[in-house]
Amino acid sequence: MPKGPLMIIGGAEDKLRRRSILKEFVAAAGGADARIAVIPTASSLGIEVVQVYDALFRREGAADVIAIRPESREDAHDEALVKTLADATGIFMTGGNQLKLSAIIGGTPLGEAIIAAHERGVVVAGTSAGASIQSSHMVAFGGPGATAKQRMTQVAAGLGLLQSSVIDQHFDQRNRYGRLLMIVAQSPQLLGLGVDEDTAAVVERRDVDGEEHEVLRVVGRGAVTIFDPARITTDAFEAKRSAPILASGVVLHALPAGATFDLTTRTLVAPDQRVDLEEAAEIAEASHDLRQMARDIAAADASPTALRRRLARARRQSTPPTHGPDGVTS
Amino acid sequence: MPKGPLMIIGGAEDKLRRRSILKEFVAAAGGADARIAVIPTASSLGIEVVQVYDALFRREGAADVIAIRPESREDAHDEALVKTLADATGIFMTGGNQLKLSAIIGGTPLGEAIIAAHERGVVVAGTSAGASIQSSHMVAFGGPGATAKQRMTQVAAGLGLLQSSVIDQHFDQRNRYGRLLMIVAQSPQLLGLGVDEDTAAVVERRDVDGEEHEVLRVVGRGAVTIFDPARITTDAFEAKRSAPILASGVVLHALPAGATFDLTTRTLVAPDQRVDLEEAAEIAEASHDLRQMARDIAAADASPTALRRRLARARRQSTPPTHGPDGVTS
Repeated sequence: MPKGPLMIIGGAEDKLRRRSILKEFVAAAGGADARIAVIPTASSLGIEVVQVYDALFRREGAADVIAIRPESREDAHDEALVKTLADATGIFMTGGNQLKLSAIIGGTPLGEAIIAAHERGVVVAGTSAGASIQSSHMVAFGGPGATAKQRMTQVAAGLGLLQSSVIDQHFDQRNRYGRLLMIVAQSPQLLGLGVDEDTAAVVERRDVDGEEHEVLRVVGRGAVTIFDPARITTDAFEAKRSAPILASGVVLHALPAGATFDLTTRTLVAPDQRVDLEEAAEIAEASHDLRQMARDIAAADASPTALRRRLARARRQSTPPTHGPDGVTS
Repeated sequence: MPKGPLMIIGGAEDKLRRRSILKEFVAAAGGADARIAVIPTASSLGIEVVQVYDALFRREGAADVIAIRPESREDAHDEALVKTLADATGIFMTGGNQLKLSAIIGGTPLGEAIIAAHERGVVVAGTSAGASIQSSHMVAFGGPGATAKQRMTQVAAGLGLLQSSVIDQHFDQRNRYGRLLMIVAQSPQLLGLGVDEDTAAVVERRDVDGEEHEVLRVVGRGAVTIFDPARITTDAFEAKRSAPILASGVVLHALPAGATFDLTTRTLVAPDQRVDLEEAAEIAEASHDLRQMARDIAAADASPTALRRRLARARRQSTPPTHGPDGVTS
């Protein structure tokens, strides 16, 4: 069984209108057979948040929604609570404070059970804080700003469902370019992912020439921004205080809905060509005409002028003339 | 005579305390011999702005400061006004509305005179609007945001002192990542430069292996961000309405003060290594010891154990023992 998909949601996913991300999550969890575990630990609201997602997931047709709500590391060791994850077909972690979430579940039987569920094929989704905790390295705090500056953010340990990565959320709306760039400049073995609001990075396993690749697909209203620092030149190891950081040679990928990115090779997967049907018909006809002309020239049975005349004649026969008193088509 | 330096200032340059950018401009204009032309046309204030820069440049020692203040294209054709630029040793364009500035001087004798001054070696500086107008392609309008979206900004023609480029300013402070990325996605022949407030990109000619290169050096408090879209994959030619744009494979360079970037080759110029003197002395000594040991082993006149003892003896002779009852150094 391949690992389950991840849905890394940048916060503020649409809950009222198109609901594309929530729909996709419920479908991935099994639709009418879905049994979804909601983990609202990051949130300060808790039960109210569960009620909202309970209603949302049931509206999309989920069979069952249960709340798993540890409020301490002791809770996260509770066998009965951990066991409730055993037959979940989807896990959803809400927004809030990701440090609270990781402080309560990181390294506990409940945290391990989430990882185990992912490994047996269950879809794991999370929004905002619930997105950040999915990466191996987790943004903890940090201010906004486009320019990467020393000490503008901090890193803690995430669940590691997505390895060698750091995920940031509310990316466009809270202007988090700088802090994500600071993290990858200090840790160039990580790939940085910034997810906009009402946008999800869906990570799935895909067979590419007999090899299993991690492939990211973008769903929703905004973009997923990827920083690949593999070839960075940086002074992040010695920049003083809150100085701007040198980060030269980072490869940037801004990916809107529909884009697909191979995380294993760190390259864009070429999109399907969108073809204009009218243009295609025109090209096909021209191509046919040219082939005929080439054959005629090869057979040397006519001058180019005669050929052009013949071509015009052939066209008049295949399409009705639109105007012109002497039969010249427009 | 090589072309003069450009100083592309991201707005809000420090005028009261360190004043590093304004100092560098006056020095480049000739210091005590500087005769500086201030062009405040972008500003809605005009004469007040001239008074401020007049006082600032004189405080840094400039011999003379004159105002060139066309308020219409007719003014920008005025021969007497244009002639005042003939003996300027520095030109400074203020902030304001860059479309007003380009609409009044673009393609006029005054605009040509600025280009001519740059070509005969005069330093041309500009802040905010006065920065944007220096590039061949000029950001005209546009909202903030980290994510590049279709139609989020527009482009007009700049003076073209810096060719094949588009310059944005207040880059960090006004969150202009998205709009600069949109422009380079639509025009991948351009290099995108985003300059933070109180920061300047100083562009100079430099001889590199007998070839003249344009080299950019960063001065000031923030960073200069460069987008190199040469190898971009994008859907900017077909993205609808205000949809996020695909921009994959853009190379990003975030450059703080002191960084140097070769615009001709589009690569970072390696910074001078900062060496820790104590570490250097230690390495030099270890290297000497190892060379001696290698010679001794090659001569095969002693066992490795005897060599290690001899090395320890040599060290005791060259440095006083710090502790140890039997003469073992620490």
